[in-house]
Amino acid sequence: MKTRRTRFRISALSKPRGRPGARFVDSVLFRIISVDTPPFVYFCTVSHKTWEGVMELYASPMACSLASHITALEAGLPVTVHYVEGAKTADGRDYREIAPNGYVPALVLASGQVLNEGPSVLQYLADQKPELGLAPAWGTTERYLLIDTLNYLSTEVHKRLFQPIFSGTAAEPTKAAAMAALEPTLDYLSRRLGERAYLVADGFTVADAYFVTLLNWFRFIGTDIARWPNINAYYQAHLARPAVAQAMAEEMSERARRAA
Amino acid sequence: MKTRRTRFRISALSKPRGRPGARFVDSVLFRIISVDTPPFVYFCTVSHKTWEGVMELYASPMACSLASHITALEAGLPVTVHYVEGAKTADGRDYREIAPNGYVPALVLASGQVLNEGPSVLQYLADQKPELGLAPAWGTTERYLLIDTLNYLSTEVHKRLFQPIFSGTAAEPTKAAAMAALEPTLDYLSRRLGERAYLVADGFTVADAYFVTLLNWFRFIGTDIARWPNINAYYQAHLARPAVAQAMAEEMSERARRAA
Repeated sequence: MKTRRTRFRISALSKPRGRPGARFVDSVLFRIISVDTPPFVYFCTVSHKTWEGVMELYASPMACSLASHITALEAGLPVTVHYVEGAKTADGRDYREIAPNGYVPALVLASGQVLNEGPSVLQYLADQKPELGLAPAWGTTERYLLIDTLNYLSTEVHKRLFQPIFSGTAAEPTKAAAMAALEPTLDYLSRRLGERAYLVADGFTVADAYFVTLLNWFRFIGTDIARWPNINAYYQAHLARPAVAQAMAEEMSERARRAA
Repeated sequence: MKTRRTRFRISALSKPRGRPGARFVDSVLFRIISVDTPPFVYFCTVSHKTWEGVMELYASPMACSLASHITALEAGLPVTVHYVEGAKTADGRDYREIAPNGYVPALVLASGQVLNEGPSVLQYLADQKPELGLAPAWGTTERYLLIDTLNYLSTEVHKRLFQPIFSGTAAEPTKAAAMAALEPTLDYLSRRLGERAYLVADGFTVADAYFVTLLNWFRFIGTDIARWPNINAYYQAHLARPAVAQAMAEEMSERARRAA
């Protein structure tokens, strides 16, 4: 059983689903703001009532968990972000005790239950503040289009393209096939986006948080996003969004710390 | 613009995400029941009111669209199933006019909007009859666990394992790596299922429809599911479920027709 102390510790990840390497550090610089809960909360005398609803997000810097981090900031939720690295948590536990498959994101709910897939974590976080429209209301066609988009991004972009490209063990022909699919995928996403400012709805949703995360990866592997002007304009506008900038600054800071 | 006639035609698919080959025909035999709408509906004199809410499901027999087919039958929804094969529809159109990426399932809503990912189609269908519990109610933790499970199945099982195994172009080392991951994946799914009768909730949900579809594929490629007794018991119990048996019988019939 987890203790409070354990739950608030910064932990370690064994298998991010896709993780940009160190050279990305030099290309994206933002204001650095720590969003991690300071250690003294372990000892605070505030009623536990204050901590009801607190969630623990396990993340790897600039991995797909960035989308969840952005969403938590957009919604102003009481989410503690724990950066994870390697196979163990900071207090020596196997991260697989929290996430059996070892990947991020994992969101530990206040109930202790764990969500371990991007689309479930993103929708759970968004639905904590339905008034913000980070996910369209349940039952609307727009909500199903959001689910559709999240699944497209997670299977056809994240898993089909970036998983082999970032993999240390994928065969070279497989990596080459994935690299060859990057351009047609961006062509398709460019048509899907059109001249709209957001991917699914009239405002920012978790699909945008995920798309920006994936666009970071396209750029990281050297794709010149400027060749798709509508995507480039969308990307630049989203990088300037405060929650995106804050989450990326925090995660780049963690990457810089590790590289030091 | 689609005409009524076009919308009710049987169509053709270019790129199923994973499709068992012909020898599966011999190993699964069920009562054959046609669920396709008979041609005379084109000329019926029933008020169009009757057809409000009719949905068109584009499917490839025994592909991942089987889960949506099962769900439509479970819910008794007015869904017309169109089997698709090759790059063109039966009336000569490119199937990509309906589904730009060419894969199944595609669900054309009564509004004309299209959902083209398993998890979005499954949840849309389930939510048409919330009283059946094919998806837990919106906002419950169980619903997020369902979303979590659907995403796990679509990324880690369908896309990571079966996509390279069924691919005609994947490199041999990639196929070998996917084959090597089959057993650990079933180990994990066995632990996740435990001794429960259903994967997520206390009753049958769309996650079960998807899992049964994927278990067909494990068996098709020669995995001896009996080595995981709880999964085997689950699989056998679900094969006997009327909607599963009916959908599979229909789809095996279509496969037999093509093989003839």
